[in-house]
Amino acid sequence: MKIKIEELRKKIENVLTSTHYTQEQAKDIADVLIYAELTGKNTQGLLKLSGTEPIQDIKPQYEPKVIKETKLSALIDGGANPGILVSKIATRLAIEKCSTSGFSIIGTNNTFSSTGVLGYYATKMTEKDFIGIVMASPPGSVPPFGGIEPLLGTNPIAFGFPTKEWPIIFDMATSAITWYGLVRAKALGQKIPSGLAIDSKGNLTTDPVEAMEGAILPFEKGYKGSGLSLVVEIMAGALVEAIFHGSEEKGWGTLFIAIDPNLLTTTEKFKENSSLLIKTLKNSKKAKGHDTIHIPGWQGFEKKEKSEKTGVLEIEEEVIKVLA
Amino acid sequence: MKIKIEELRKKIENVLTSTHYTQEQAKDIADVLIYAELTGKNTQGLLKLSGTEPIQDIKPQYEPKVIKETKLSALIDGGANPGILVSKIATRLAIEKCSTSGFSIIGTNNTFSSTGVLGYYATKMTEKDFIGIVMASPPGSVPPFGGIEPLLGTNPIAFGFPTKEWPIIFDMATSAITWYGLVRAKALGQKIPSGLAIDSKGNLTTDPVEAMEGAILPFEKGYKGSGLSLVVEIMAGALVEAIFHGSEEKGWGTLFIAIDPNLLTTTEKFKENSSLLIKTLKNSKKAKGHDTIHIPGWQGFEKKEKSEKTGVLEIEEEVIKVLA
Repeated sequence: MKIKIEELRKKIENVLTSTHYTQEQAKDIADVLIYAELTGKNTQGLLKLSGTEPIQDIKPQYEPKVIKETKLSALIDGGANPGILVSKIATRLAIEKCSTSGFSIIGTNNTFSSTGVLGYYATKMTEKDFIGIVMASPPGSVPPFGGIEPLLGTNPIAFGFPTKEWPIIFDMATSAITWYGLVRAKALGQKIPSGLAIDSKGNLTTDPVEAMEGAILPFEKGYKGSGLSLVVEIMAGALVEAIFHGSEEKGWGTLFIAIDPNLLTTTEKFKENSSLLIKTLKNSKKAKGHDTIHIPGWQGFEKKEKSEKTGVLEIEEEVIKVLA
Repeated sequence: MKIKIEELRKKIENVLTSTHYTQEQAKDIADVLIYAELTGKNTQGLLKLSGTEPIQDIKPQYEPKVIKETKLSALIDGGANPGILVSKIATRLAIEKCSTSGFSIIGTNNTFSSTGVLGYYATKMTEKDFIGIVMASPPGSVPPFGGIEPLLGTNPIAFGFPTKEWPIIFDMATSAITWYGLVRAKALGQKIPSGLAIDSKGNLTTDPVEAMEGAILPFEKGYKGSGLSLVVEIMAGALVEAIFHGSEEKGWGTLFIAIDPNLLTTTEKFKENSSLLIKTLKNSKKAKGHDTIHIPGWQGFEKKEKSEKTGVLEIEEEVIKVLA
């Protein structure tokens, strides 16, 4: 069904202020959920108000606080606040430190819900002409290559690069489907495609509920998919003192890295080069069945621009229900 | 055939000193080629003295020089020296700067041959208890998702993490097979597995020569494999002012990042956490057909240790021939 963006925003904010959040916090969270819906990342939007950790049910313990800091870095204890709120604080700090030092690395731990769409934070960094890298490590739902136990998180990673047009925003889960991809399929009464998940006995399944009780497979079936998942588990888990399977650390972890291209080249030259690369790719010969070369993130920005022009967004009725 | 490691080293050094290199440079290059052979990365070893850019044929123009520098960073003009020589200089500089600043990023351009096995440089960084990230962007041989023109490099990326035992060294090409995988298949008179490459008309091929004239596919067939390749193309190409398809920049590019875990946690805690994660993975239930969970890099270190004990290495006769 069609819904006005501003109406959607109000509804989300109402759900959040009705439990534990101030108006300002509700706005901060709504920003990220609406960005996900507008850019077509529909497993990272409204659905975060449902499923296994609905954001409105997360009860913060204390304000997020920096527990270790250098000129280049900070480690933030999230105080059991939602991942999205803490990620917004971390992104602001990453931009601030990168503005003075040319580089920054911010870790967060002790949060207990999804960070939402990582591309949002990477986009914010590109708006300051920085390269942004964001990784998140939610609890285990993916087995390592050669195993069947869900020990690694769905472990998304996003890269953002400024260009002379829209930024390049490459944002992927290292799992074959996101956790909220399962939540969405369940909510819509759908099966998931074959080959993405196994049940608790290790057999392939297309049932989202069986998959939740079993495990999601890595995005690539060899050692490479699993290896990249492990990289994120270490950098957004072990490195930021957040939980990983077998550890006694605190909560979910996220890592934010900002790099000023001026460390190696100039902003102007970097953006020119990135734009030239995009042009080269877009103008190249297409494979059978393809009529365009997609630039990571651009389909989302096109979608967003269209919706913002009309002020209206199309969302499934079953999904809107989470706002009731 | 079996060959003594020391004999192999002498032979490699002889090939290199017979053309453009000093004894010290020859030793520097041999280190990396022998590391590749010892760890089983046999497409990144001796074969680099053959194929399309044999290292001994690269004629350096001038000494590599730093052309831009900050406390955290440096951009090195490779002076047309072999990628391996310039990568060794970059790795030393990355370690030096990270030791004083906690972070460093070093780019190189203007080299004209392979950087060899990226895991070597990442391993060097872990020996100083740093996290190492290395990316390289050789000339185009991989089409973007939806395309058939070889516009992106095979674009390998490596991550190294110190632990209390061997480091974790995850080192992968973002292409389905490396360029020297094709060179190796050709040298051994072998076909390559199906699904890895296309001929110049865009049809799948198992012939390494047809693949060289066509293109290698990304390691994962959807937008994710291609997206990661693009990330490396930007960070080890556009960002370091090295060549990429359509640009007029200089030579091949490489990027080296070192991160001191002390920015966010302590070295001790990070290594303990990494080791705990390894233990959890190794002790987990195995999938059908698997009797172990491989930790990235460890198969290579086991192999290396075994060979170093006996002082002897097994290499195919056809490959040894490149030393003749």
